[in-house]
Amino acid sequence: MEYILRLDMSKQSVTEEKVPAKYEDKGGRSITSNLLYDEVPAGCDPLGPNNKIIFAPGLLGGTGASSSGRLSVGAKSPLTRGIKEANSGGTAGGYLARIGVRALVVEGEANEGKKYILHIGEDRKTDLIEVDFEVNGAYELINRLCDKWSDKIAVICVGPAGLNRFRGASVIMSDPDFELRFAARGGLGAVMGAKGLLAVIVDSPGKAQRNPVDKDKFNQTVRKLNKLLIESPKTKNQQMYGTASIVSAVNEMGALPTRNFSTGNFEGVETLTGEALHNLIDKRGGKGRYGKRCMSGCIIKCSNVVPDEKGNIIVSTLQYETIGLLGSNCGFSSLDHVAHLNRLCNDIGLDTIETGAALGVAMEAGLVDFGDYDGAIELLEEVRKGTPTGKIIGNGALITGQVLGVRRIPVSKGQAFPSYDPRALKGNGVTYATSPMGADHTAGNAFGDRKTTDPLKKTEQVELSRKLQLRAAVLDLLGFCIFARPPLLADPQLMVDMLNGMYGWDLNEEKLWQMGRDLLEIEWAFNEREGFTPGQDRLPEIFSMEPLPPTNSVFDVDQKEMAGLRDY
Amino acid sequence: MEYILRLDMSKQSVTEEKVPAKYEDKGGRSITSNLLYDEVPAGCDPLGPNNKIIFAPGLLGGTGASSSGRLSVGAKSPLTRGIKEANSGGTAGGYLARIGVRALVVEGEANEGKKYILHIGEDRKTDLIEVDFEVNGAYELINRLCDKWSDKIAVICVGPAGLNRFRGASVIMSDPDFELRFAARGGLGAVMGAKGLLAVIVDSPGKAQRNPVDKDKFNQTVRKLNKLLIESPKTKNQQMYGTASIVSAVNEMGALPTRNFSTGNFEGVETLTGEALHNLIDKRGGKGRYGKRCMSGCIIKCSNVVPDEKGNIIVSTLQYETIGLLGSNCGFSSLDHVAHLNRLCNDIGLDTIETGAALGVAMEAGLVDFGDYDGAIELLEEVRKGTPTGKIIGNGALITGQVLGVRRIPVSKGQAFPSYDPRALKGNGVTYATSPMGADHTAGNAFGDRKTTDPLKKTEQVELSRKLQLRAAVLDLLGFCIFARPPLLADPQLMVDMLNGMYGWDLNEEKLWQMGRDLLEIEWAFNEREGFTPGQDRLPEIFSMEPLPPTNSVFDVDQKEMAGLRDY
Repeated sequence: MEYILRLDMSKQSVTEEKVPAKYEDKGGRSITSNLLYDEVPAGCDPLGPNNKIIFAPGLLGGTGASSSGRLSVGAKSPLTRGIKEANSGGTAGGYLARIGVRALVVEGEANEGKKYILHIGEDRKTDLIEVDFEVNGAYELINRLCDKWSDKIAVICVGPAGLNRFRGASVIMSDPDFELRFAARGGLGAVMGAKGLLAVIVDSPGKAQRNPVDKDKFNQTVRKLNKLLIESPKTKNQQMYGTASIVSAVNEMGALPTRNFSTGNFEGVETLTGEALHNLIDKRGGKGRYGKRCMSGCIIKCSNVVPDEKGNIIVSTLQYETIGLLGSNCGFSSLDHVAHLNRLCNDIGLDTIETGAALGVAMEAGLVDFGDYDGAIELLEEVRKGTPTGKIIGNGALITGQVLGVRRIPVSKGQAFPSYDPRALKGNGVTYATSPMGADHTAGNAFGDRKTTDPLKKTEQVELSRKLQLRAAVLDLLGFCIFARPPLLADPQLMVDMLNGMYGWDLNEEKLWQMGRDLLEIEWAFNEREGFTPGQDRLPEIFSMEPLPPTNSVFDVDQKEMAGLRDY
Repeated sequence: MEYILRLDMSKQSVTEEKVPAKYEDKGGRSITSNLLYDEVPAGCDPLGPNNKIIFAPGLLGGTGASSSGRLSVGAKSPLTRGIKEANSGGTAGGYLARIGVRALVVEGEANEGKKYILHIGEDRKTDLIEVDFEVNGAYELINRLCDKWSDKIAVICVGPAGLNRFRGASVIMSDPDFELRFAARGGLGAVMGAKGLLAVIVDSPGKAQRNPVDKDKFNQTVRKLNKLLIESPKTKNQQMYGTASIVSAVNEMGALPTRNFSTGNFEGVETLTGEALHNLIDKRGGKGRYGKRCMSGCIIKCSNVVPDEKGNIIVSTLQYETIGLLGSNCGFSSLDHVAHLNRLCNDIGLDTIETGAALGVAMEAGLVDFGDYDGAIELLEEVRKGTPTGKIIGNGALITGQVLGVRRIPVSKGQAFPSYDPRALKGNGVTYATSPMGADHTAGNAFGDRKTTDPLKKTEQVELSRKLQLRAAVLDLLGFCIFARPPLLADPQLMVDMLNGMYGWDLNEEKLWQMGRDLLEIEWAFNEREGFTPGQDRLPEIFSMEPLPPTNSVFDVDQKEMAGLRDY
């Protein structure tokens, strides 16, 4: 039996109800988005009491299927002012699924200045605890929570940025090693902070497993999937180099954000690549490692631990998007610099993409120079302190650019571009412009299709993005990491069989894709109710005007064609 | 013969063409809005080279009709990201009309860091002059320009805020006494500054008059209008108390913005009223006066000169909206404080409404306290200096509220509310939400209808606003000040006869109103092309949730009804 838990921060009450029939086939991003559509009124203040923040494991969360334990977080975004879902690895997704929580809906808001922790124990017994300690950083906070409870918990929390309602704030989750994971995008941490909810603690359900309706069918399919993942050459590559494995390729395409998206090639790229990262970890040893998991049972294990020269942990995990945005985009060619900036963002509870883009814009404005490490650290510390300058940066790239008067502001629907310049990877430009999520690298990323669809040509990109957005939607509602994509998309029957096995349904492939289309429809409908139209599905004008070296490409996909992306 | 002048700041060229047939019946706001619709591409950066800023006298500008010489300034607004027109008294409107300029279109942009002055002399001979002096303030700038040319010029310029592209920047115009007037709203000063155009100088055409096609008919109607204005008791009231005459009444309605729109009654109101202002001017004497003109030939003469204790000028003219936004809204009950803050905004080239609202928001955030005069002065000086905090304030109320994390941000479509809380004057709330101009007190102000339409009831407000928006559109395209409203609306045939007399047209009343409707249609169409929809025609959620003392009213006009305002 699965439940929707509701935490009303205004009334300080928690209730639970069985998953109603209308949400029975919805999980992850599809249950967060449908609940938001049904319950969040149009025009509501994203940081006010009428917004809701919803946590939901995917339909296959908490099972033995590799890489299926991601936790979706959904809310109306204070950055995009549209619907938002961001999902994260870590342990909370699997724990919640295994104790029968299909979704945790947080609504209302606590009294000004108050902050609370929700503890969810055995049989979904809950406890809302007011706390009054200062939160200086997420690392200290997680330690404090482990000290109070145990290391048998999963933590979902915010840092100072979320408590201060900064639009660049992420939702933080703990992983099996109590390193930090992020539902980073869309300023969802600000929504959680605005509710006065500092953290959700979920006790480990121990060995409790979810019971598939058709155990044999389910387990058999899972074994098949896991075997395919083990045998995939991509898996080995991910274990060795992680997401950073693509740094070189993106740079070669001329799509690597460099000094506030002013060029697509970074002269310091050699020291930022996946190979460089691998070698650094190898050389320094100590606590450094690669092939680390963010979720139990994951076969791909793309994560790493970056050690300092003494072998102590700087940060885990250092990822591609962070290397692009906090690295080349800010003019840093040292992985040490990037790793330390990453840790600082993590500690403050900031999205590294949004914040890296904001720093790049601030550097272009001359607040500090590109490549000025001490200056960048100082700016981030200002965010932590909440100085006026810190509040500018903490609120993301758009506000930073508007305040500081920068013309090239790399955002779509108010949200910073991830680490692919849309002029040199036009399929991603289409996704940034048209996705209900704003500029997002997991909502339909065309990088993997660069060999079949020329990333520089202006045609076929809308069709490509449409297909990729649908795939992303399906993976997100199942709870899968996008790295599990290859076998799942090569044989979608795997997903069908797992769902049928788990729930006793009678899906087929077509119905599976329809679930994805329905999800996108409801998200577009949410945004339309907020006043968004396909006419707004465009990138900032400058990306159509200013050629990007070295390809000298501009973003020239036809706007009318993009506006038609929603027509299946 | 009338002309459209085009200044291309990229090419540094000026061309002129006869007014094309399609614009023959368009002037003021109707020619700025139509040119913007026809020439400014959807999605363009308001501060980029593809935006245009257009200056246009109304169709009756430069004639003897009282109060008809306002100059419309139009552009895509960096605040609202939609179409914008703001108009201003001063001498430039009449001068341009009298030398045959129907519109001056400024396009392109100068090279980064360069600034220019356009001089327009006899027979529309033009000269574009690069200047390299620093611009510290508008008062010093105007003096410098008069020194260089003469006191027989009209000046249109920007101050430091415009040159720095702050979204709160106004376009400044000189009046007959070289006091400053403002096309204040929408951040149009930032657009002018972004083009590198510091100033436009128009030489006085001396006694040159426009030639009506039917002189008798025209002059006869003008005499009739002027007589009606002379005899109107409102005129006397305006000469004595200026626009400040309504301070008491708005306060009594509970609609006076007070401490960031937290209440509609200000306990210090007695020292801010029109009577208090009148008495202060009387008592101090010196250069103080009331019954001053902003345009030659104006019968209404609502302006004043506020003197300090020694009789020297603090500011001219101190107006109602400024008293509300920089006064009660910031907790100031001293006219001296308000007058000095007003002068400072003028000098920096800031809209007092946008900036007063931004200061109120900053005060709510605790940056300085409400009523802290030295603190407010310091914040404005930071705007002049362009510090990070100054850039926040200078970019207006929305950005200030977003950065500083304030929930009650009094804006619609990104632009600050003028000095009527929409919860206690709901007709204005409808105008703020639905006008293509964003929150604007001249786009359809229901204050004058408070006795016939209860400002607190939620019905009939849409109908009222629709009517008022149409009237405002017609006055704006003719070049009339809204204070000439009473006789013109009591007998619209006056407007018809003046237009027919001036241009030899064959208008009737219905056709006149159709010109207004056409204008609104083109503005809505511009905004729609930018992605705006009637679904976005709403006020920030908090104004529907938080009761406003003392009436405890919320803004509850039905959103669907508002979205239907455009359906005639």
